[in-house]
Amino acid sequence: MATSPNSPALRSWIDIPPGHDFPIQNLPFGVFETDERGPRLAVAIGGYVLDLYALSQYGFFEDLTELGAAQPKVFRRRSLNAFLRLGRPAWRAVRQRVSELLRHDAPSLRDHEEAVRECLLRQTHVRMLRPVKPNNYTDFYSSIEHATNVGTMFRDPANALLPNWRHLPIGYHGRTSSIVVSGTDIRRPHGQRKAPDEAAPTFGPSRQLDFELEMAFVVGTGTALGTTVPIANAEEHIFGLCLFNDWSARDLQSWEYVPLGPFLGKNFGSSVAPWVVTLDALEPFRTAGPVQEPAPLPYLAQTGNHNFDVQLEVALVPAQGLETTISRTNFGLLYWSMAQQLTHHASNGCNLEAGDLYASGTISGPTPNSLGSLLELAWRGTRPVPLADGSERKFLLDGDTVIMRGYAERDGVRIGFGEVRGTVLPAE
Amino acid sequence: MATSPNSPALRSWIDIPPGHDFPIQNLPFGVFETDERGPRLAVAIGGYVLDLYALSQYGFFEDLTELGAAQPKVFRRRSLNAFLRLGRPAWRAVRQRVSELLRHDAPSLRDHEEAVRECLLRQTHVRMLRPVKPNNYTDFYSSIEHATNVGTMFRDPANALLPNWRHLPIGYHGRTSSIVVSGTDIRRPHGQRKAPDEAAPTFGPSRQLDFELEMAFVVGTGTALGTTVPIANAEEHIFGLCLFNDWSARDLQSWEYVPLGPFLGKNFGSSVAPWVVTLDALEPFRTAGPVQEPAPLPYLAQTGNHNFDVQLEVALVPAQGLETTISRTNFGLLYWSMAQQLTHHASNGCNLEAGDLYASGTISGPTPNSLGSLLELAWRGTRPVPLADGSERKFLLDGDTVIMRGYAERDGVRIGFGEVRGTVLPAE
Repeated sequence: MATSPNSPALRSWIDIPPGHDFPIQNLPFGVFETDERGPRLAVAIGGYVLDLYALSQYGFFEDLTELGAAQPKVFRRRSLNAFLRLGRPAWRAVRQRVSELLRHDAPSLRDHEEAVRECLLRQTHVRMLRPVKPNNYTDFYSSIEHATNVGTMFRDPANALLPNWRHLPIGYHGRTSSIVVSGTDIRRPHGQRKAPDEAAPTFGPSRQLDFELEMAFVVGTGTALGTTVPIANAEEHIFGLCLFNDWSARDLQSWEYVPLGPFLGKNFGSSVAPWVVTLDALEPFRTAGPVQEPAPLPYLAQTGNHNFDVQLEVALVPAQGLETTISRTNFGLLYWSMAQQLTHHASNGCNLEAGDLYASGTISGPTPNSLGSLLELAWRGTRPVPLADGSERKFLLDGDTVIMRGYAERDGVRIGFGEVRGTVLPAE
Repeated sequence: MATSPNSPALRSWIDIPPGHDFPIQNLPFGVFETDERGPRLAVAIGGYVLDLYALSQYGFFEDLTELGAAQPKVFRRRSLNAFLRLGRPAWRAVRQRVSELLRHDAPSLRDHEEAVRECLLRQTHVRMLRPVKPNNYTDFYSSIEHATNVGTMFRDPANALLPNWRHLPIGYHGRTSSIVVSGTDIRRPHGQRKAPDEAAPTFGPSRQLDFELEMAFVVGTGTALGTTVPIANAEEHIFGLCLFNDWSARDLQSWEYVPLGPFLGKNFGSSVAPWVVTLDALEPFRTAGPVQEPAPLPYLAQTGNHNFDVQLEVALVPAQGLETTISRTNFGLLYWSMAQQLTHHASNGCNLEAGDLYASGTISGPTPNSLGSLLELAWRGTRPVPLADGSERKFLLDGDTVIMRGYAERDGVRIGFGEVRGTVLPAE
């Protein structure tokens, strides 16, 4: 029987420093290009990308019947979407095979000098692309701490959570066109804003630019319109997860959002990490979510552990400044699980499509330094966040770089998510 | 100089009954397939579709340099998107050429028996497809009568319009995956709902299924992320318009929509008409919109006529019943113009993509029989709408078919939009 690709005992013939995000147990998927190579799918291993198209051309996937006639072409694409449509047996077969090829005692790739040269590229030598082409993007609102904080600040501290919040995973549709890969600069948007003490709105650069720390899951297997997904099957549709920064212009958002929700305060840009960590790799890190009270309606009721213990952090780097970690929290704290989000989303028959992104909403913890946005960390500007260079922040300044990182760790194995980063450019 | 394809003097060698939606002055674009022919682009003329791929293969577009190397392939696609990306010169060149070929005194196609047989198919012999593959779909809220009615019913009659409404075109992102072409049945969705007098929510089939009469514009020329669109240039990005039914489950919507807007109450299905009428064909039907008070901020200020005088109507046909026209209104009544919607949407740098759909929001007029939804027509169930078969409606029943139609008419020329229709299937 094949060794599980998650086994802590595995090690690779590739030199990977301890505590690295991408050990042989991880093998996240992404898409890269170089000046010489068009877009190709890859797996991250240590500081390298493993070119799956090149690997396929060398015949290393030849016997994987799960790929059918799709290889090698499916690996020479600008997104994971076509690969996702092949389904979980194909995803698993490729990850298993890559794991076997990278094991320290497996000579077939290791000792094939030419193949190693062609298939293994330093991450610093490639450009990572947006991993999926999302046809649909939904942003949930699943942190009870975040929803409570926002409700306290903007509505009524005594009734911070709206009556529906504990009954269903609130969400809204976001904009797909402006989802960019980590490393893409974010231009400070113009927009309409009106402070409560102003008589009329004005138009100009946002004065309250913010980030939101989120995780997004990628749907791998879609559904037909009119089909629902029983909660017991929900995770079967999820390929993996990635870090996500839902940049937000709070002044635009608070003026525009009633009654139809966030719009231009969000859709000027969202940043996604280049690497999608498979749900399979996260299997050892299942954890119980918070107790749900009242109990969800039967269609959302689940047993077992459907949250994932992933440490998250946000760092802020001013222009020419030092990096400060300004928040540390955990993905496992979310009130609504991904399975509940997905099942709710499909409960009216809305169809899911391969490559769809479903973001968690801001992930905030219960303590002042575990909050997932500057809005909350600086509590609407009333307690500015101190930075290592002596400056402080109520909202983001031009030149600021925001970096989000995440990892799960146990038994000496770290399943890392890499990072999602973006730098704020001044308004035009 | 070439005759304008809009000239009322034009007539075609194809027999078209007076008052037909698709005279030679219209020439809307769509996508069809048959059992023998894969998806192809077409123009509607009278009761026929004109197969643009076949026309291209017969060489009728050979000298159109605006098409470059894209033909004939660009006409053998499942959506208009690739054609849209060619830009306005290409759209105009094709419409102008088709107009020339169809003129009563033009023999080149008319007298080419084989080409006529191959290029001209009866609409009843083809299947129309969704005209675009929308990467993005935004739904606005631009009828002041609709926004006032909803605000009156659900919030506060004294302050029905929220403070932001007259300052910006409110909108939200909708779901693209569930946008279907006219004729597709709509399954009554399940969902959570809680009436104000109920202690807790329940899950089950929607009891308040509704339609929304809308028009959607199709973006032809996209923009790069970070680019804004001055209002004077906004219409340059618009290819055309089509009828749109934004099916809505009012009970799901009213429970879920705070604070992030409509979600599962909408995304179980939206229906789009198969024919996109070009903005060029609508040029003779420009009209002034309502006076905007207060004056919009400078980035939204425009002079001239940017609304379009399009008559709209909604018919309801019960299962085995008679058709009743239950609403008549006009697209020209909208408070916010398409140009203002588009410029506002791009004002923060959000990028537009070819094939995007931007719907108007429910189009309601000022009188009780000009309202664009059953919610308003039956005033939240308090004045049921009588039908020709003696029954009445507060909301849609299983088996009901909703048909929306629209046309602009002047000087004996009718620029019709065809129809968008859908039948309600019982919940599963």
